[in-house]
Amino acid sequence: MRLFRHPHSTPPGSAPGTLVAPPEAPPSVVTVTAVDESHLTEIRDAQPEGIRPLLDAWPLVWVNVDGLGSTDVVEGLGALFGLHPLALEDVLNPHHRAKVEIYDTHAFAVLRMARVCDGALNMEQVSLFFADRYVLSFQERAGDAFDAVRERLRAPGRRQRFLGPDYLAYALIDSLIDGYYPVLEWYSDLLAELEDTVLTEADAGFVARTQQVKRDIQMLQHGIWPMRETVRTLATDPRLVGEDTRRFLDDCYDHVIHVIDILETYRERANGLTDLYLSNLSNRMNEVMKVLTMIATIFIPLSFLAGLYGMNFDPDVSPYNMPELRTYFGYPIVLGAMAVLALGFVLYFWRKGWLGGGK
Amino acid sequence: MRLFRHPHSTPPGSAPGTLVAPPEAPPSVVTVTAVDESHLTEIRDAQPEGIRPLLDAWPLVWVNVDGLGSTDVVEGLGALFGLHPLALEDVLNPHHRAKVEIYDTHAFAVLRMARVCDGALNMEQVSLFFADRYVLSFQERAGDAFDAVRERLRAPGRRQRFLGPDYLAYALIDSLIDGYYPVLEWYSDLLAELEDTVLTEADAGFVARTQQVKRDIQMLQHGIWPMRETVRTLATDPRLVGEDTRRFLDDCYDHVIHVIDILETYRERANGLTDLYLSNLSNRMNEVMKVLTMIATIFIPLSFLAGLYGMNFDPDVSPYNMPELRTYFGYPIVLGAMAVLALGFVLYFWRKGWLGGGK
Amino acid sequence: MRLFRHPHSTPPGSAPGTLVAPPEAPPSVVTVTAVDESHLTEIRDAQPEGIRPLLDAWPLVWVNVDGLGSTDVVEGLGALFGLHPLALEDVLNPHHRAKVEIYDTHAFAVLRMARVCDGALNMEQVSLFFADRYVLSFQERAGDAFDAVRERLRAPGRRQRFLGPDYLAYALIDSLIDGYYPVLEWYSDLLAELEDTVLTEADAGFVARTQQVKRDIQMLQHGIWPMRETVRTLATDPRLVGEDTRRFLDDCYDHVIHVIDILETYRERANGLTDLYLSNLSNRMNEVMKVLTMIATIFIPLSFLAGLYGMNFDPDVSPYNMPELRTYFGYPIVLGAMAVLALGFVLYFWRKGWLGGGK
Amino acid sequence: MRLFRHPHSTPPGSAPGTLVAPPEAPPSVVTVTAVDESHLTEIRDAQPEGIRPLLDAWPLVWVNVDGLGSTDVVEGLGALFGLHPLALEDVLNPHHRAKVEIYDTHAFAVLRMARVCDGALNMEQVSLFFADRYVLSFQERAGDAFDAVRERLRAPGRRQRFLGPDYLAYALIDSLIDGYYPVLEWYSDLLAELEDTVLTEADAGFVARTQQVKRDIQMLQHGIWPMRETVRTLATDPRLVGEDTRRFLDDCYDHVIHVIDILETYRERANGLTDLYLSNLSNRMNEVMKVLTMIATIFIPLSFLAGLYGMNFDPDVSPYNMPELRTYFGYPIVLGAMAVLALGFVLYFWRKGWLGGGK
Amino acid sequence: MRLFRHPHSTPPGSAPGTLVAPPEAPPSVVTVTAVDESHLTEIRDAQPEGIRPLLDAWPLVWVNVDGLGSTDVVEGLGALFGLHPLALEDVLNPHHRAKVEIYDTHAFAVLRMARVCDGALNMEQVSLFFADRYVLSFQERAGDAFDAVRERLRAPGRRQRFLGPDYLAYALIDSLIDGYYPVLEWYSDLLAELEDTVLTEADAGFVARTQQVKRDIQMLQHGIWPMRETVRTLATDPRLVGEDTRRFLDDCYDHVIHVIDILETYRERANGLTDLYLSNLSNRMNEVMKVLTMIATIFIPLSFLAGLYGMNFDPDVSPYNMPELRTYFGYPIVLGAMAVLALGFVLYFWRKGWLGGGK
Repeated sequence: MRLFRHPHSTPPGSAPGTLVAPPEAPPSVVTVTAVDESHLTEIRDAQPEGIRPLLDAWPLVWVNVDGLGSTDVVEGLGALFGLHPLALEDVLNPHHRAKVEIYDTHAFAVLRMARVCDGALNMEQVSLFFADRYVLSFQERAGDAFDAVRERLRAPGRRQRFLGPDYLAYALIDSLIDGYYPVLEWYSDLLAELEDTVLTEADAGFVARTQQVKRDIQMLQHGIWPMRETVRTLATDPRLVGEDTRRFLDDCYDHVIHVIDILETYRERANGLTDLYLSNLSNRMNEVMKVLTMIATIFIPLSFLAGLYGMNFDPDVSPYNMPELRTYFGYPIVLGAMAVLALGFVLYFWRKGWLGGGK
Repeated sequence: MRLFRHPHSTPPGSAPGTLVAPPEAPPSVVTVTAVDESHLTEIRDAQPEGIRPLLDAWPLVWVNVDGLGSTDVVEGLGALFGLHPLALEDVLNPHHRAKVEIYDTHAFAVLRMARVCDGALNMEQVSLFFADRYVLSFQERAGDAFDAVRERLRAPGRRQRFLGPDYLAYALIDSLIDGYYPVLEWYSDLLAELEDTVLTEADAGFVARTQQVKRDIQMLQHGIWPMRETVRTLATDPRLVGEDTRRFLDDCYDHVIHVIDILETYRERANGLTDLYLSNLSNRMNEVMKVLTMIATIFIPLSFLAGLYGMNFDPDVSPYNMPELRTYFGYPIVLGAMAVLALGFVLYFWRKGWLGGGK
Repeated sequence: MRLFRHPHSTPPGSAPGTLVAPPEAPPSVVTVTAVDESHLTEIRDAQPEGIRPLLDAWPLVWVNVDGLGSTDVVEGLGALFGLHPLALEDVLNPHHRAKVEIYDTHAFAVLRMARVCDGALNMEQVSLFFADRYVLSFQERAGDAFDAVRERLRAPGRRQRFLGPDYLAYALIDSLIDGYYPVLEWYSDLLAELEDTVLTEADAGFVARTQQVKRDIQMLQHGIWPMRETVRTLATDPRLVGEDTRRFLDDCYDHVIHVIDILETYRERANGLTDLYLSNLSNRMNEVMKVLTMIATIFIPLSFLAGLYGMNFDPDVSPYNMPELRTYFGYPIVLGAMAVLALGFVLYFWRKGWLGGGK
Repeated sequence: MRLFRHPHSTPPGSAPGTLVAPPEAPPSVVTVTAVDESHLTEIRDAQPEGIRPLLDAWPLVWVNVDGLGSTDVVEGLGALFGLHPLALEDVLNPHHRAKVEIYDTHAFAVLRMARVCDGALNMEQVSLFFADRYVLSFQERAGDAFDAVRERLRAPGRRQRFLGPDYLAYALIDSLIDGYYPVLEWYSDLLAELEDTVLTEADAGFVARTQQVKRDIQMLQHGIWPMRETVRTLATDPRLVGEDTRRFLDDCYDHVIHVIDILETYRERANGLTDLYLSNLSNRMNEVMKVLTMIATIFIPLSFLAGLYGMNFDPDVSPYNMPELRTYFGYPIVLGAMAVLALGFVLYFWRKGWLGGGK
Repeated sequence: MRLFRHPHSTPPGSAPGTLVAPPEAPPSVVTVTAVDESHLTEIRDAQPEGIRPLLDAWPLVWVNVDGLGSTDVVEGLGALFGLHPLALEDVLNPHHRAKVEIYDTHAFAVLRMARVCDGALNMEQVSLFFADRYVLSFQERAGDAFDAVRERLRAPGRRQRFLGPDYLAYALIDSLIDGYYPVLEWYSDLLAELEDTVLTEADAGFVARTQQVKRDIQMLQHGIWPMRETVRTLATDPRLVGEDTRRFLDDCYDHVIHVIDILETYRERANGLTDLYLSNLSNRMNEVMKVLTMIATIFIPLSFLAGLYGMNFDPDVSPYNMPELRTYFGYPIVLGAMAVLALGFVLYFWRKGWLGGGK
């Protein structure tokens, strides 16, 4: 649960607005995309000071920052766009709940993105500032989450819509929420796999893995729940988005609800797994107990019989002392009796369903 | 849980409003029913372009589409009725929660239908557009859900009411909610069957089947819960339905609540099943343990006695060395002692209720 | 769970307002009671057409219908009082939640009554129409639920209050809610009985009976919960009841809350029963295991000793081969050692509390 | 669970406002305390008719009634103060939830008091009427709950405040809520005791006692929860209390919340107890199983060896028939092998932690 | 659970506003810090009477009291600042929920601080009064919670902001909430440790320790939940804080929500631990049972065979009486049969995964 070990980059009690890069954060890489109706220009590895001329010249400038390791870059962008220090602190403090905050000159949204890396759930924070002419997005790590949006931006036909920065902000949020679906599929497969193994080859590690899946689902739920409120706020506040974009955000809101619904189903499935596992364990214990009982029921009386005729009472002393030992057919009769006894029990167990029943 | 594997027909990040048919969707079949007070005409396998003349000539036109496989048909109808592309995307994306959306020229409702096919729960989306002169309905698959409404529409006496399209929309929603009752009965029977088998012949598969029923009930609950809000909205928004139809929708709302109540009861019953199963498993384990303990209690002392007199102490050496072996009635006495011991234990178990008690 | 098998009298898809008597409903018997300040007249087995003159002549007419089997009687009364067809459908559809609906000329309340018949919980629907001069009540089956009210109506001194039909409606609802208390007592006794048996003689049927009680309590809760809202609505809507009656309905509301509180306590008690049962089962299994372990601990070493001296090593060949067998006190010493060993274990178990401890 | 057996003193269906004393209620004893700024007079065993002159002469009259057995006293006081018959019925019906009701001339509050008598939880109802010049309180049984208030009333310096009857009402409610704290401490001790015994000497009765504590805590919660609403209402309704007293009631409200918080903690602790008990039971079962397995593992192979050399194959017939029996060191070697085997197992169990581990 | 043993310093029924120091409270130590834009003065071990001149001379005076043992100091400060006696009682009664109360001349906030001392959770109450020119804080015990704020106050550059006492109050609250993070990390480590040990070396004490962690987490939740409401109130009430500070309190509110979120995750993890433990216990029991069953399955038939050939049937009497005993290869054949049987079972268990599987 590394996620919760250092939730605060700043030491307790430090002044608010102190910018400290999160530990092990990769250095920041700034990509600037400027568009108008007919042209598009992209600058990779841009510097904050190189952005200002673009802001004056183009109707829409999208500044994307991958990696939160360079506080100077963040501070430079904050100074350029006039961002509130508390908002910048939130950007560098990558464990916030999704939220929207409205400042005088810009809106600020914190969102949570989900990804599966090397079989482990990875939740990252995406921070989004947007105002009349620009959108500024921060990602914890470089990734392909926004590639589809960039692609659509490059296609000349559809660019018109993006000239309202609220639409670009919507498109980024939408692609981020769409990114939950592959994660959901991954967990659906994982649950299906666990459901398959629970009845056949579940071992002690099974419960631990189920717990992990439960925790992952819980973390996804923690990530997506506040997104509902966030998208709702975005979709209903007229200061934030235009009427056109509003309906798209409503659609986005439906997707969030959908993800929440599916996660709820997964949670129930994961809970059902523990029940299945425990009942399977009880069943197997029951099987083992039956084997033990069958062995005891069959062999203990036989062994008793064998022990009985192993007694050393002296037949010479008295005709009552184990005369069976000297009868002509004594041994075969005892053997036969043993066989009958054993067969009788086997038959009894077979009719009771203990033989082959539980396997 | 195939249902949640491909919840999105469109790939993540694609532009909103992109129409992609859901995988394996059957081709769309359009049926048009036009009615006025005295006449009714039905066209099967209609084409979008063939509908426009009807719209002008008849006071009520009902266009029903079975199957979502033909995006051109859906696009054609969207163009004909002037539907919003996001609404059309929702129609083709058959995993939405029930909802109502009001556009300028029409209302759009998404509903969920339940059916039991080949012993498996099948939940389908029904999309409904309605405006002043038409109702447009989309079903995922051809089915008989709307046959009763069509029948009532054909009966001349009752047709008057349908001339308000809100009443037709209500009738479709009502027949859809009525369709939950056979599903409820099916699960009631299933639960009764599981309740009967749990105490007699429950095996490891029982828990898996109970889990399946639980999941189905949960899915039904997920389907019906948002319907409450949807029907509520329809029944209270004066833009959507007239005063006349409102009371019918109130009745419809009662039915939704009723279905929700029953499902809640089923959920509790299904949860009770697991308890019953586990306690039954414990009881059976207890039975097995008792058998084992009875065998041990009866035979182990007897075997010890037999073993005792199987020792080879030499009676010739000393009068204290197992003189019993040479007494006249030694063997019968030992046999008798064994019988008394065994009978005593049997009597003891019988009084303790271990014999025949738990069977 | 017969209750939920045919929740709908009408087949799915049939037109709303279709009156179909519920299956196996007894025929309707109409009793009319007309009162003014000084007189009272009762007509048994009345016909709808015989009621109209009474309505004009008396200030308060109470029409009570027992049994829902005769749709013609229900239709006749509907026509006489001008009742809405959907309300009449609700009357004949005896599985509705409690609710209040206000029509232009009358109020309509659906309530749920609880009774214990032959040891089984029986929940019935009571429908109540009331307006300025009449109260019309429908019961599923003839019963004595309203006898106390009828008795109070017959007493001349108290009749004044009843001349407002809202007070009669209140009195009927109050007597109906009072009817929950004997049911609560019955379940209290049942729970006390189950609590007594759980520790002494609980068998596999115990869990099934507890499940039944849980389901009954749940059904009572489902019946009484919406009554809270219903009585609340009645008590607060000035269109429905006068100021005088309002305070009585407040009192009635307190009783509903009281019943809900008690049921909640019962639910917890019933849940506690399963815990008690399972822990008792574990305790008994523990007892059985202890017996098994004690037998094994005492006898297995003894049997080993007996087996040891049953070996056939030839003492003639070597002085090391089982010389004990030929010593003078060999046998008594071994017997003594066995006795000491057995006694030691018994003492050990006694000190460990295994002997007599758990019984 | 005597408390819920006769929740209603009046039979079902009886007219509202019928005064029936609760069964086994002690006779009512009336104590009147009249105060002004400089004087105080107390009358014990007062009669209703003796109170009227005091009401006219003194600014504050407190009438306290212990015991609800005398309906004539209650009726007399009701007539004297002009109380509503439904309120009087609530006084005699001692199972109501806490509530406040405002009548034209007085306010009426029902409260629940907690006490531990002879090791059992005892919840009593306290009813409180107060108006401009008097406070009238009813207790189910004589007790010392109000002694501290009476004492403070006797102290001349602080009497001023009490001249507003709302302050006296507050003081009574406050002392009643303070009375929950000793009960909480008692249950805290009980829980601590149960927590201590669970790991050492828990027997079958333990679960029953835990259940009892859980039920008591639940009953306390049921008693205190509605008090929150009650005190809230008292503290916010300007008709009921003056601005001065309001702040004191806010403080009182904090205490109610505090009691609710602590009870919630106790409920969790009580639930944890069952977990502890069950896991302890499983641990002990595990211990027993280990003993059984160790015995089986050690002795069964040894017994087999002993049995092996107890076989009667004739060494005279063939040199392959058990030649060991005639070797010189056969017996010591077998004995040694057995010792090595046993020691090996003991060593194995010791390293596996089975020996002494769980004790 | 010492915390809840004496929740009330004052005996039940005592007059409100009575100041009684909590038992074992350390004596109060007053530290006064007065600042203006350019200067700062600190007085340690100040007396209430020494503070008044500072209040007139400095724009901001912060009075911090460590320890609640000296009622005279608290009373002196109360008189100096004109504090309400009920608020002072709350200060000395250190078990209140977090809350904000607004008096005419000052605001009063109760907050809860969390600390881990000697491996045990320690929750303390911090009371905060603030008005136009002063902040007065009370801590139960001396500690370093406010050191970071004091440090920032000493730094001249940032002092400007503190001149509004609402900012100082915010800074204190913020440092207090920041203080939850080390506690969260401590519990995260504890949970990780418990999760590590559960599968390897969990013993009976494990459940008790898990219960303790659960209770601690619950207590933290009880402490932090009302803080949300408190900080919310502070952040939204314009009488309490200025517009500048409001945004900082919003940030503070985010941190409270964050802590609540993490605690919820911890609670789930702690609950998962019990599941892991119980399933691990079942697994180990299963292992033990398997060992027992394997021993029984292998050795009981072998012992039976040995017992069989230990019978004393007399081969001289009849050729059918155990002729095997006199065959030339009888003994080796039986030994071989035993070896084959044993190896067969071992092979069978190995293929069934019982050997080495669960370890």
